[in-house]
Parts: sequence; structure tokens; C-alpha cells
Amino acid sequence: MSGVEEPKLGEECGVFGMYDLDGNDVASTIYYGLFSLQHRGQESCGIAVSRTDGPPRNSNVCKGMGLVNEVFDAEAIEKMQGDIGVGHVRYSTAGASVAENTQPLVLNYIKGTLSLAHNGNLINAVELRQKLELSGAIFQTSIDSEVIAYLIARERLNVGKVEEAVKRAMEKIKGAYSIVIASPRKLIGVRDPFGFRPLCIGKRDNAYIIASESCALDTVGAEFIRDIEPGEIVTITSEGIKSDKSMSGDKCAKCIFEYIYFSRPDSYMDGVCVYSSRITAGKILAQQHPVDADIVVGVPESGNAAAMGYAMESGIPYGTAFIKNSYVGRTFIKPKQSARESSVMVKLNVLREVVNDKRVVMIDDSIVRGTTSDRIVKALKDAGAKEVHVRISSPPFLYPCYFGTDIPSSRQLIAHNHSIDEICELIGADSLGYLDINRLDELIDGDKGYCNACFSGNYPLDPPKEDIRGDYEK
Amino acid sequence: MSGVEEPKLGEECGVFGMYDLDGNDVASTIYYGLFSLQHRGQESCGIAVSRTDGPPRNSNVCKGMGLVNEVFDAEAIEKMQGDIGVGHVRYSTAGASVAENTQPLVLNYIKGTLSLAHNGNLINAVELRQKLELSGAIFQTSIDSEVIAYLIARERLNVGKVEEAVKRAMEKIKGAYSIVIASPRKLIGVRDPFGFRPLCIGKRDNAYIIASESCALDTVGAEFIRDIEPGEIVTITSEGIKSDKSMSGDKCAKCIFEYIYFSRPDSYMDGVCVYSSRITAGKILAQQHPVDADIVVGVPESGNAAAMGYAMESGIPYGTAFIKNSYVGRTFIKPKQSARESSVMVKLNVLREVVNDKRVVMIDDSIVRGTTSDRIVKALKDAGAKEVHVRISSPPFLYPCYFGTDIPSSRQLIAHNHSIDEICELIGADSLGYLDINRLDELIDGDKGYCNACFSGNYPLDPPKEDIRGDYEK
Amino acid sequence: MSGVEEPKLGEECGVFGMYDLDGNDVASTIYYGLFSLQHRGQESCGIAVSRTDGPPRNSNVCKGMGLVNEVFDAEAIEKMQGDIGVGHVRYSTAGASVAENTQPLVLNYIKGTLSLAHNGNLINAVELRQKLELSGAIFQTSIDSEVIAYLIARERLNVGKVEEAVKRAMEKIKGAYSIVIASPRKLIGVRDPFGFRPLCIGKRDNAYIIASESCALDTVGAEFIRDIEPGEIVTITSEGIKSDKSMSGDKCAKCIFEYIYFSRPDSYMDGVCVYSSRITAGKILAQQHPVDADIVVGVPESGNAAAMGYAMESGIPYGTAFIKNSYVGRTFIKPKQSARESSVMVKLNVLREVVNDKRVVMIDDSIVRGTTSDRIVKALKDAGAKEVHVRISSPPFLYPCYFGTDIPSSRQLIAHNHSIDEICELIGADSLGYLDINRLDELIDGDKGYCNACFSGNYPLDPPKEDIRGDYEK
Amino acid sequence: MSGVEEPKLGEECGVFGMYDLDGNDVASTIYYGLFSLQHRGQESCGIAVSRTDGPPRNSNVCKGMGLVNEVFDAEAIEKMQGDIGVGHVRYSTAGASVAENTQPLVLNYIKGTLSLAHNGNLINAVELRQKLELSGAIFQTSIDSEVIAYLIARERLNVGKVEEAVKRAMEKIKGAYSIVIASPRKLIGVRDPFGFRPLCIGKRDNAYIIASESCALDTVGAEFIRDIEPGEIVTITSEGIKSDKSMSGDKCAKCIFEYIYFSRPDSYMDGVCVYSSRITAGKILAQQHPVDADIVVGVPESGNAAAMGYAMESGIPYGTAFIKNSYVGRTFIKPKQSARESSVMVKLNVLREVVNDKRVVMIDDSIVRGTTSDRIVKALKDAGAKEVHVRISSPPFLYPCYFGTDIPSSRQLIAHNHSIDEICELIGADSLGYLDINRLDELIDGDKGYCNACFSGNYPLDPPKEDIRGDYEK
Repeated sequence: MSGVEEPKLGEECGVFGMYDLDGNDVASTIYYGLFSLQHRGQESCGIAVSRTDGPPRNSNVCKGMGLVNEVFDAEAIEKMQGDIGVGHVRYSTAGASVAENTQPLVLNYIKGTLSLAHNGNLINAVELRQKLELSGAIFQTSIDSEVIAYLIARERLNVGKVEEAVKRAMEKIKGAYSIVIASPRKLIGVRDPFGFRPLCIGKRDNAYIIASESCALDTVGAEFIRDIEPGEIVTITSEGIKSDKSMSGDKCAKCIFEYIYFSRPDSYMDGVCVYSSRITAGKILAQQHPVDADIVVGVPESGNAAAMGYAMESGIPYGTAFIKNSYVGRTFIKPKQSARESSVMVKLNVLREVVNDKRVVMIDDSIVRGTTSDRIVKALKDAGAKEVHVRISSPPFLYPCYFGTDIPSSRQLIAHNHSIDEICELIGADSLGYLDINRLDELIDGDKGYCNACFSGNYPLDPPKEDIRGDYEK
Repeated sequence: MSGVEEPKLGEECGVFGMYDLDGNDVASTIYYGLFSLQHRGQESCGIAVSRTDGPPRNSNVCKGMGLVNEVFDAEAIEKMQGDIGVGHVRYSTAGASVAENTQPLVLNYIKGTLSLAHNGNLINAVELRQKLELSGAIFQTSIDSEVIAYLIARERLNVGKVEEAVKRAMEKIKGAYSIVIASPRKLIGVRDPFGFRPLCIGKRDNAYIIASESCALDTVGAEFIRDIEPGEIVTITSEGIKSDKSMSGDKCAKCIFEYIYFSRPDSYMDGVCVYSSRITAGKILAQQHPVDADIVVGVPESGNAAAMGYAMESGIPYGTAFIKNSYVGRTFIKPKQSARESSVMVKLNVLREVVNDKRVVMIDDSIVRGTTSDRIVKALKDAGAKEVHVRISSPPFLYPCYFGTDIPSSRQLIAHNHSIDEICELIGADSLGYLDINRLDELIDGDKGYCNACFSGNYPLDPPKEDIRGDYEK
Repeated sequence: MSGVEEPKLGEECGVFGMYDLDGNDVASTIYYGLFSLQHRGQESCGIAVSRTDGPPRNSNVCKGMGLVNEVFDAEAIEKMQGDIGVGHVRYSTAGASVAENTQPLVLNYIKGTLSLAHNGNLINAVELRQKLELSGAIFQTSIDSEVIAYLIARERLNVGKVEEAVKRAMEKIKGAYSIVIASPRKLIGVRDPFGFRPLCIGKRDNAYIIASESCALDTVGAEFIRDIEPGEIVTITSEGIKSDKSMSGDKCAKCIFEYIYFSRPDSYMDGVCVYSSRITAGKILAQQHPVDADIVVGVPESGNAAAMGYAMESGIPYGTAFIKNSYVGRTFIKPKQSARESSVMVKLNVLREVVNDKRVVMIDDSIVRGTTSDRIVKALKDAGAKEVHVRISSPPFLYPCYFGTDIPSSRQLIAHNHSIDEICELIGADSLGYLDINRLDELIDGDKGYCNACFSGNYPLDPPKEDIRGDYEK
Repeated sequence: MSGVEEPKLGEECGVFGMYDLDGNDVASTIYYGLFSLQHRGQESCGIAVSRTDGPPRNSNVCKGMGLVNEVFDAEAIEKMQGDIGVGHVRYSTAGASVAENTQPLVLNYIKGTLSLAHNGNLINAVELRQKLELSGAIFQTSIDSEVIAYLIARERLNVGKVEEAVKRAMEKIKGAYSIVIASPRKLIGVRDPFGFRPLCIGKRDNAYIIASESCALDTVGAEFIRDIEPGEIVTITSEGIKSDKSMSGDKCAKCIFEYIYFSRPDSYMDGVCVYSSRITAGKILAQQHPVDADIVVGVPESGNAAAMGYAMESGIPYGTAFIKNSYVGRTFIKPKQSARESSVMVKLNVLREVVNDKRVVMIDDSIVRGTTSDRIVKALKDAGAKEVHVRISSPPFLYPCYFGTDIPSSRQLIAHNHSIDEICELIGADSLGYLDINRLDELIDGDKGYCNACFSGNYPLDPPKEDIRGDYEK
């Protein structure tokens, strides 16, 4: 979880769908749900609801750039009447950070109104768009949801149910996708066959919820039912839940970085608690990169749990070395690179009392460009730390991700251009240890069905020839 | 022209397109152009520009709810780099006044980015949407532009040029439309074969402009070249202007209300000065409904020119009887209907000095529900007018318009339910005279090719079975 | 009246006070009152109300930069409960256009809460501030109201009634002031002994109103009672109106420019209708500067009435030559001075049909720097006018005003540096005539008690040695 | 530190002053300084700067309601040129949360412009205001700064230096105050003789800084010099620092709650690290209220350090049981008290994995009304905690604070109305222990000069007869 701090890696997206079979309005619960998923995307957000007892074409939408509490006010939520709906929080790179790309995507097709919210990235979106355009389609956004919506709309002409059309669309799209869809009378949750991104189901009273992470269920007081399985299509109607697993494959590729960094520590995904994953990562680090030290500290927020794991395993006391200023918001003015402001350190301050005259083990979840690590190590030393031993709770970042994570190009990745020893020197640490790629499965209880392509280059699906963002968004 | 006052009839829309062959940015000129067309629509507005020397898919868009000076700021205009672009000001009924319906519509299709701005209303949009949906189309807005865009995109697959595709789309769409389109390398202006809505071409230095009214050309310092003819497709490329009139029909149906009310008096449309039209209307009223009186006054702004015409013809002196408060904006708080606030009259005040003890001829452009006329007549009498003779510079409003004007349903039209004598009594006037429907052609120099359906029920095209706004927007 | 167009001369301020003896809330009526006085100041505005049956220290204030409809929304007005209150619209030069200078000034003193709204300028404010500071006063604004409030607060310690304290304060302050004050139980209106700025009383049901102009009374449906006389203090309590004229002097100096330009034409001030004043000015111009021409036109809005007067007197037909775009608001982006934008003319357009091939008499209220006149004359000629004869409904501007009008320094005044012939040539006119200073009294029915210092340099009070704006606001 | 979460107790204020002797602009550094003090007040904030080489009356002010990153943008900071200035973050109860009460207070007095920012509460402000009003003063705000400014302005007439006037004002004011003042050429820091609120001095290059907490010095890259002592007046001029301790008394009364709750853990105040204080509090709790348990957890953020202290002393492992959502901002829509939303828990979620099946010691800094504690204990039990033993790192809250802390009235304090056993039952805990009032001095290294009036009722100064907020703000 990253707080409002600028993501080191880029976040991705969060989705939340709800259908209250008793007919109660769902907008305010979606609001709180999105709020609890805010760490997954802070660029824009939106909610679309409709009434299942209304005409097939009805919807209320509110979308905008900014945080959940910036985009919606009490009046807007009050006005959004509907017992079914979906919500979305979004992160994207700067280029495509435009109003028309906010989600959910709301559209009319032959059977009425459809609202979609999508987390992930298709790798064949460029081809699909081209194909669709070649049959006369027009595109008003550069988001994958629009491609998916088109495919569903077309397939719906041939099959009797929207969930069937969704399934046929799944046969065409490739990549990472966890989607919630509200049709006039159904709430549908879909997870791609590789299960790249998480998705789970919950229930509160007589209302069903489909959300990216279980923490969203906790926040709205709903009970966790189960994860949606890779390749599964879950359809909720007034009759209850139906499941179709005919698209499930035999190979999973869950994003391991969801556990290391993206998700909230209190979420459970595919049976694994994110917090426990991080504790485990810390323990492994302690086994593989032990060091004689006085204290173990985590870089907040995501490094804290791993630091605790390192402490448990090593016996070195756990401590809190950083105070994080959580007021940094979207409109915060960044310090200039001038000489005078170079020493301004707004987000983190070191607790001198804790690290002074100590040998410190500092745990962070990753090193991307190295500049942040450099500043933090320096701050610890300025505060009196005698030694700073950096331990990273993931293997070195070497390859781009095509499945929903915004990782800079290889050129910018410090591990791509430098040996570990060089990195250690560049960031001013006394020693540096990364998590062993071979032990990643221990983070998720030995499950082998995960994706580690950003560390190994072993992509579960061939990467696209042309990057999807290139053509449409610049 | 209605000032910022709430329209009695509803406005429609205004379009402005520009292509600078020298490669200069066009956004700021489009801004001033839209500003001069603000009277045609005050609900939302937008500008989209792109670079003709860029990749085929590039565009900069800024759209929003509100007036031109509310939606754009200097920074936004500065950022919008592009030598080709289109702009739009929009009016709609409350129901559809939503962000996703703002124009221009910007989309990608097989050949690149297309931006459309549309003034008018299609009468077969519902059927076309249904047909498109039946072939798998999805719709993200409820504006006609989206239907038109689809048709163009589909036809483009079969023909070699975008203007050819536009022509083929015109064979399918029925109704009122004046459209400007920016394709990757061309600026296209289209006017429907009946010529319901105006559209003209201008030039400034080496840049071409296509706009709803000639006043927009004056404002930006461009020279008026000519009107686009009904059914004509004008294509501007780096080579200059081309024209295709193969869609022109032999029957025109220019909206006569453009002259009476919608357009700015300083605009010239199809060879006729709007101001002169109104002078003529006033003269006809003086001939047909003479009265012994001391002064002729107009209800601002649109009634003023007709009042001057009445004065010229009758010899009764022209005077200014009303002071209009032009600060009424979008956020103005309307007086409540409570007893205490019922006497508040914020938009108009009567110049007592001018009308006291006088027999007044009061000219207005129309009576819709009758409530406004009632208040104004009363205000004149309160200010000492001995008699108030109301003259209306159009025939009585009896039928709805399906071609771009937002006229209330017949039930709400006072002339639908009452005789002229009854209306006269209801609004408290001493006499009442309407313009004779048989003399409307005199307003446009005897041209018979105009539409008077709102007065006669004689629709040039059969009205739609289902009103287009019904299904999509409520 | 200037519309939302930028003032040529600078506006000043408008005040509106109200006390409803029946205990009804007054905030919404003050809102509409200020709205009708918006032409007097468009920079900032505010309303302060309190309950006369509450504790002596209670008030509700809402102030801000911008137009009345920008600063207040329905919720804010709803919340402002109180049966007594004052409001203000403000204009100032750029330097002092800061939030802390918005009025009304609301303060606590020994007897409770006092709210003041002031129109005018004191010429001894600098000395008074210095004196007050020398006795320990602190100042949080640079507006005269604060000086006046201090004097009232100090005098109130020595006398039994607030209106007595106001009177004693009047003995100390010199200059132009029309003030409304709400004390815990009284509404007070004061006009300086010279009567520079207007102030009048009205009544609606059981509520009293004190306003800068009578048009504000019309707007809120109140009846005009009478003007407050120069030097008069009017006190409204639950018992009704009391008047104290003991401060009235024998020399009046009403600002003649209120009639020529500032005030709304539908206002009556000191028995004279502003509209009639302007008609008279036009007639005088026709007598003094006759010309052989085809049409007389006014530069909107303030030139229109004078043009009508010129037409009446000369027999030359009156016409409307300009269409004004009233959507220009505070946030409007001004055209750059670049070559390409130099021809953009956003606020006015010429009705070619009216002036083409005509000899035109063009009436404006004043020439300040000459640049605007130059552009308008050119626009008329571009539209085909054969001759343009400029007539100005005031004498040439030669001297600064210290009594509430923001006139540029002499250096910038074209008439200060050029003969009339030179000005005529500079603005490209065929002839130019100003109103004769000796006939100004005819504008106000022969009343000699007016100030013409800006034309004559004859100040009714010695100008201040140090300009009040200098020290405090820069 | 409370994050953006709503304060349980109310925050107070934070001040930051800076004078750059090299003449560099200070506004952006003040911005970052205020940002690091945001936890002390989130209601409004402001910055005022001026140039020491300008005229004595010059200043640039920007103030507003909201967080630091909401009130200021890059353009505003850019425009604020000045090498001396003060800033303020403010908290107040709802009633007085109005724009006119934002600080710094900027005023002109006989010697030029003075800007003041104040943290604390005077207990004789009502009397002082009355006295000042009796000599003719007027008040435009209800903040103490205005009273202090008046006194300084008056005394300045009798003495030769502003710091002398400050000293004389200190002889009159009673209560809690830490103030920074920018005069035309001097930056002054003052702390009341009891030292209720903290204040310290730092330096960066050739610029001096005076701030509420040392964490602000760290954030802007400044070096901590020393605390300002109780009763000390520090004056910074172009010559350097001067100190006047003649007002220092022999009795100190530093607010102990600054260490327990208000201040940031990384701040050092009067030689004590706040973090260490909290560690100590946790250790004492472990000594006095031991319990057989499996894990110790803190309620974030303020409970975490005490929890770590408890863990150290008891040997029970420390754990993280709560995930806090730091995105809750000012505009957050609070869940309704409806049945359906009662289970929504937006700010905190429990890490089930950590507490399930565990006996938990939960450390919080205080219990005010008991409702929050009740919810948190319940959430732990819902997550599977077998036992929840609550330990509070302060004694029970029994008396109101008149020195700058917003504590609810005694009636609302749970400890005022219930025994500890009753509270334990009310909040659903298995045991409850408070910090012993007799050991509070251990939190600050045995220093006896602290105020514990909110626990003991032993006020270092007699409380005011009339509460200062009563008259002016409601």
C-alpha cells in the first residue's frame, strides 16, 4: 500500500461492483468500496449505477479526475439512484491521463445499458482495435474496456445471454483482466484465465459485491465469500450466483507484485493474506542476507511488514525509523531542484532517536531507478545510523510488465544497467540483498501459478509487438 | 439573440471549424469564434484540435459544462496545439444536459482521428441507432454526432475518401444538420439538403473557417466567402476548397426562426441580413396591425430590431423601454415563488420616464407559454403606460419542431389552447397582433424555401414516430 | 451602465441595506439588490446580516472576489439568517483588489456588532489613519470603511446613540461617502454633505431599504420613498425612520458623471432620471455640434440614450449600429496583441447593414485614452460608413478624481495632451464634438450643485496631498 | 500525530516564521514547513511575507480554509515575494471556523506592517477585548492574535522597539501562547512564561526559522538550534539573534499532551524526543498494568510508539493490527448512521491474520467519549481476538483545557461520569489500564514543570470566568 505518496512503480486500477437484490441504492457503498481501493489508483475514479426495475436503458454516472473524495460529494452520491452498479479507481501514465479515459465505461448496445470497470491490460488490444475498425467501429477512448465492450456487444447478437457474450469475448481478448459489468439485470465478474489480477465476491445482507480486494469487503461491512477463480465468469441475478468456469485454463499467472507491493496488507487474495506474504518475504531475506545489526526498519508503508518478518527471523529488534507525512495530495507543490530546496524532504522524516548510532537493516519492496533509495539511505546516515543494510523484498526489476503494471522502460531500471554491487554503492548502502527469485512461491504458500516476468522475462503470454499505449494516447 | 437570459424557446447549437494552411495554431481563434456563437448554446462547449503534420491519430480536446469563458482558461487554450480543429457550443433540454454529451465528438476510426461538431437534429436517429446496434455498435452518448460518425466510419471502408464517406452517410441520415468535421488532413463542412440550419465559409490570411453564422467570421477578423449551400459538402485540404453539391435537392426548408430569434442580428445567412429580416417583420406588423400609439418599444434583445421596423413604417417614435441586467449567469439564484419574492424582477426593468402616460406598442419575437409576456405587460402598466399593444414578430406557435429547436409540447403552448383574443386578455394587453404566416417569405427577400412547420404543421420531412430524446436520455 | 465589459473609467461601488421590521430574513433581497447594482462594481461583493432579536454580537457574513452570482450560491444565502443587513459591490484598481478589502466591513465594538458598506473616497484618510495609529489603532484593510468604523467606535464612547457617533465621525472625515450601517438594532444611511454619491430610501411591506440607486428598489419590488439628502443621517429603528440633517452644508457637489456614465439609466437620483439626463446631453450635442448625416448611433450601453437625444433634436434617424456580446466575463481570455489576433473584436460587432454607405454620427460618453474610440471608428468605416462624426456626451477629461472614480493619471488622458482637433485625427473621425462644460447643469434640470472637477479642475474640496492608495495597497 | 483522521481531542495550531538574511524568498520554505505541521491544524492555513528592503508597509498574504495543499498552489507561492514571513495552520471548533479567523493576522500600525501567527489560548482575552473596546478599539476577528496585536501597537507608542512592545504586551496577556511575528525588519518568536506550547529555532544557510516543532526544521533541511525558553523573546534582525528572558518566570507548565498526542513523534521539544516519551509511556503501562497476552498493538498513529514501549518492557511481541486509510480528507462523505451503513468502517481495518486467536494488548493515547474505543475493540474481537486488554498512555481525562486544546465539556468525557471498571465494560474490553498521573514526569525525563490540569484539575493559571469562545463566535 502506498499511501498518497507517488507510486514508485505505478499503480493499476481497482474495481467494485454491487447488486442489492432488495432494491436498495448501492452508490454510497460503492463510494466506500472505492475509497478502500484508492491505493490501487489515484488518478481518476467513477461510479455508474442503474435500476434493475427501470427500462433497460437507464444509468447514472459520475466520473472525474482525482481522488474518490475529490470527485464525489454528498449531493452527487445522493442523486445516483440504482440498485446495481460498478465503480473504478484508475492509475495510468501521464499521457493517457485524460477525462475521456475515466471508467466505468457506460454504453448502450442492443440490449440496453452496460457499465464496465476493468483492471488489467490486454496485450492484443491494438490488433483487436484494428480489426474492429476494419469492420467500421469507432473508438472514443484509449482504454481496453471499450474493446471488450465492443466484443461483448457483437457477440450478444449471436447468443441468448450477456454472460455468454462475455465468454465469447474472452475467447478473443488476451492479457490481464479483472472486470465487473453491470447489465440491465445482471452483475457479472470476470477474471482472465491466468488470474493476473485479483477479484473476489462478498455479501452484505441481500446484496452481492464483486471487488478487486477483500479489504473493500471489510470496509463496507460485507462478508468475504470467495475469490473468483482464474477464467471464471460469475453472474449475479435476482436468482443468486451462477458460475461458469469453462474458460479456466490449466496455467495460472497471478501477479506476485500484488502481494509484494500493490495490494493492501489486510487483503486476502487466492487464500493468501498479503500481510503474511510480506512477513514471509522478510523472513526469507533474513535467511538469505543475514547481517549483524541493531535494528530492522521498513520504508513505509509497504516495507513495514517485511521488516517485521526480518526482525522475527533474525532476532534483531524491529523499529519505526520513518515518520510519513500523509497529507501529500494531488495538488501538492513539489520542491524544486534548486540548491536551496534540495534538502527539503517532505514525505518522510527519520526518527533520529531510533537510528542514531545504530546499525540499521532497512527493508524496502523494490528499487526502480535508485534515486529514492539513495535519498533514504542518506537520511538515515544523516540521522546517525552507523551502517545501513538495504534488503529488498523482491528480486531485481529487469523487464517491463505488459499486464497492468506501469514499470519504466528497461533503460531506466537501475538493475538493468548495474550489478547488485554497483547498485549498493550507488545508493550508498553498506550492503544490499534482494529476495531470491527462486523462493517467490513461498510468499504464496508454495503456489507455482504466479507471474514473475518482470524479474525473469518469462512472460506467460507473448508480449505485444506494439505497445498499446503508443498509438492512441500520445 | 438572447443574452444570457434563459431562452424562451431553447437555443440550439453553434459550430466553428478552422484549418490554417500555414500551420499556425487554431485553438484561440476557435475560442473567440465560439464566444461569438455563445447565444446559440450556453449549456456546454468544447474544442478539439490536431496537427495535420502529425500522425493520423492525434488530438487535443477540452470540453465541459458551462459558457465558453467558464470552460476554457488561457492555459488550456495555450496547450491545445493544432492547425486544424472544430468547436461547439451546445444547448439541450435539462435531461440530456450531461458531460458525456458535450461536443465535439472525438473518435478514432480506421483512418485516424475524426472530430465532429453538429448543429441540428436527425429525425431517424432512433432507427439508425437500432440498426447500428443490431450490427454490434455501442453508443456512449445520446447525441446524433455519434450516429453520424458511425456511418462515416463504416462507409469509409468502402470508399477512398472521407468526403465520399460523408456523402454516403448523408444518404442515410434524415433531418437537420450542419456539421463541421476535422479529419487528419481535411476540414469538411456539410449542410443537410433542406438547409435547415445555417453554415458559411470564411477566410483569414491562409486559414479557412466554417461557422454557423457570419458574425463569428467578423469577430475573428475573417472575411466572409459564401454560405455553404443546402446539400453541399465543402472539403478544405492543403490544396484549397472543393465542393460537392451532388446531394443538393430541389426543396429547401431553411428555419425561418433563425432570422426571427436564434441568430445574431449582425449575421448574414443565405444572402439575408438577420437585422434586416427583423426590420421587415416590424414593418409588416405595422401594416397589418396598425394602432394609434405614442411609442414603439422592443423586448430586448430580439424584439428591438422589429420595434425599429414598426416605428419606421408607422411613424410612431421608437424608444427604449427596458433596461436589461446582463449579469444573470448560469449560477444565478432564481427568486422563489414566495409572496415576498414574487415582485422581484431581476432581468428587466422598465424605464418609467419613457413609457409613463404613453400608449405603448411592445414588440416581442414570440409568445410561448404567455407567462413572461404577462409579467412584462404588467410592468409597463405599473410604470404608467396607458395602453400596451403587443405585436409579435412571428405567427402563433402551434406545433413542435423536430429539426433542432427545443419547443415545449403543444399542451404548453398558449396559442395551441387559446384564441388570439383569449391570449390578449390573458397577458393583459390592450391589443395583440401576430405576424401573418403568409408574409413570412418577405423576411427573406421572397425566398420560398423555408420551413414554417412550427406555425403551420407542414413538416418538410415526416416527423419521427418516436422522439429521439425519449429512450436514451431519461 | 457598462455591462460586463471592462469599464473605460473604472466603476466605483454600490451599497444596499435593509431592515425588515417584521423579522423576515433579508439576505436574499440584498442579493437581488446587489445584483441590480452590479454595474457599479464587479470586482468583489459581500453581504452581512444579523438578527435584531439576537445578542448584540451576532452576524453572518459572506464575501468574496467576483460577481454577485459567482460569490453567492443558494445554500450560502439560505444560511444567512437575519432581519437586518448590508451588502456591497466593489470596484477598485488592480493593486488593492485583494480579499481583505472586500466589504461590508464587519466588526465588534463596545456596543456589539457593526456592519458597514461604503461608496466613495475620503480625501483625508491618510491623515486619519496616521492619527488613529498614533493612538494605538491597528488596520487590517486599506479601505476607508475601517477608518470610519474606528471613528464611530471611539465617538460612541462619548455619546448615547450610534447615530450620534456617526455624526461626530462625519465631523472628522472629508470626501465622498454614501454609507449604510447595520448596528445591532438600527439601520443607518449617511450621505456626505456634498452629496457626491447617490443614496435613496425605499420600502417594501414593512421593510426599509437604503440603496445607491433607485433601480435596486425597482428590482426588489420596493417603493421609492425619497433620496437621502447631502449631509443627512437617516436612522431606521423598530419605531420607523428618523432623520438628522444638522450636518447638511450649503454647498452640494453631486458627481455629474453618475448621470453621464456610472448609474443605470432607469435610476432616479435627486429627482432626475438618468435616462433623461442622457437624452438631454444628446440634444445639447445636436445643438452645439450639428452635422449633416444619415444616422445617429450610440456606443452601447451608455451612449445609446444620448444618441437617441441627438436623433430627436437633429431629426437624423436613430439606429443601432453595434451588437454587443454580453458574455464577456471575468475569466475571459483577452486576445493577444499578436498580428494574427489584432483583428479579433470580441465585444462589439458593427451592423454593416445599418451603416454601410452612410454618414454616421456616433455618440459615446467619454474618451479616456482614445484607443477604444479609434478601434470603433475604424470598425464603422470598415463596415462601409462614409463619414463618422464622433460626439461625446461629456466635456473632455482633464483632471483626476479624488471622490470615488478611478480615472487614469493625467498623462494617460488623451485630452490632457492633445487638442480636440488632434484627438479627432488620432481616432480617425471626420469630426469631433464634446459637450460644453457650461451646459452640464442642464443634465440635472439646472441644478448648480454638482461637481465637474474632472473636466474643470475645480475641486469642491482640496485634493489630498498624498494619494490614499499609495502607501497601503502597493 | 493524527493523520487526516478527525481528531479525537481537537488539535490546536502550528506556527512557522522565517527570515532569510540573504534576501531570498521564504514563501516556499514556509509552505513546506506548514506542511510538516499540518497535524497541528487542518481547518485553515495562511502565509504572509514581506520584503525587509521594501517600504515599512508591504506584505503578500494568502490564506484560506483547508489543508496546506488545498489553499496554496504553485502560482500563489511564486507570487509571494518576501524575505521575511510567517505561516500558520489552524484548528478550531466548528463555530468559529470562519474565513475571517484564518491566520496569520496581517495589520498596519504606526511603524508599518506586522504579521502574527499564534498557537495557544489566552484566558483573559474577554477582559482585554472589553478594556480595549472601552478605549475605542474595533475587532474584526475572534482570534487572540488580534488582542495581542492591539496591545503591541499601543505599547509601541511608548517604547523604542517592537520587541519592547511585545514584552509589555506579555505583561498584560495571560494564558498559553507561542507566537511568531514578522515586523518590517525583524522576526520575533515569543513563548509564554509557562511554556504551555512548544517553539524552537533553526537555521538553514543564512536564514533563521522559528517553528512550533523541530520536525518542521528537519523537513525544510534546517538545523535545529535550540528551543525558545518559556517567557523568552527571541528577536532576529539582520545582525543575528537576540534574546530577552526577563519575562521568564520560575514556574513552567508545559503541556504534557504535546508529548502524548499532539506533536509529531520525530519532534524534539525542550530536550525530549516525543517518540521516546511515548516509548516510556508504554513501558510504564507495562509495569503498572501487566497482562498475560500474545501481542501488543497500537491504535495508529499516536498509539504505535507506546505499544512498542509496552512490548519492550513486557517482552510480549509487538505487532501491527490496523491498516489505516490515509485518504480520508476534508471532503470525505461520512457514513450515515443508518442500519446499512453502520458497519462501514472506513478509516481503520483490522489485520485478521495478526490478531486472530490472540490475546491482544491494545494501546491508545486516550479515551474521550468512549465511542471510538468501543468500535475498535469490537473490530478486534470480530477479527478473532480472544481477549482485548486496553491500555491508555495517559491518565483519565477529567477537566477541560483552557490553554489551547479543544476538549469536550466534562459531561461528554466518559471518565468524568464513569469509573474505570465501568469504562472497561462500556468499551467491551477484557481489562483497562490508564497511565498513572504520578508518573507523567517520567515522560519528560523527570521534569516537573508540566501542566496536567486536564487530568488533575490543577490549573497553573485560574481558568477564565467566561469562556472566550462564547460571546464572539456563536
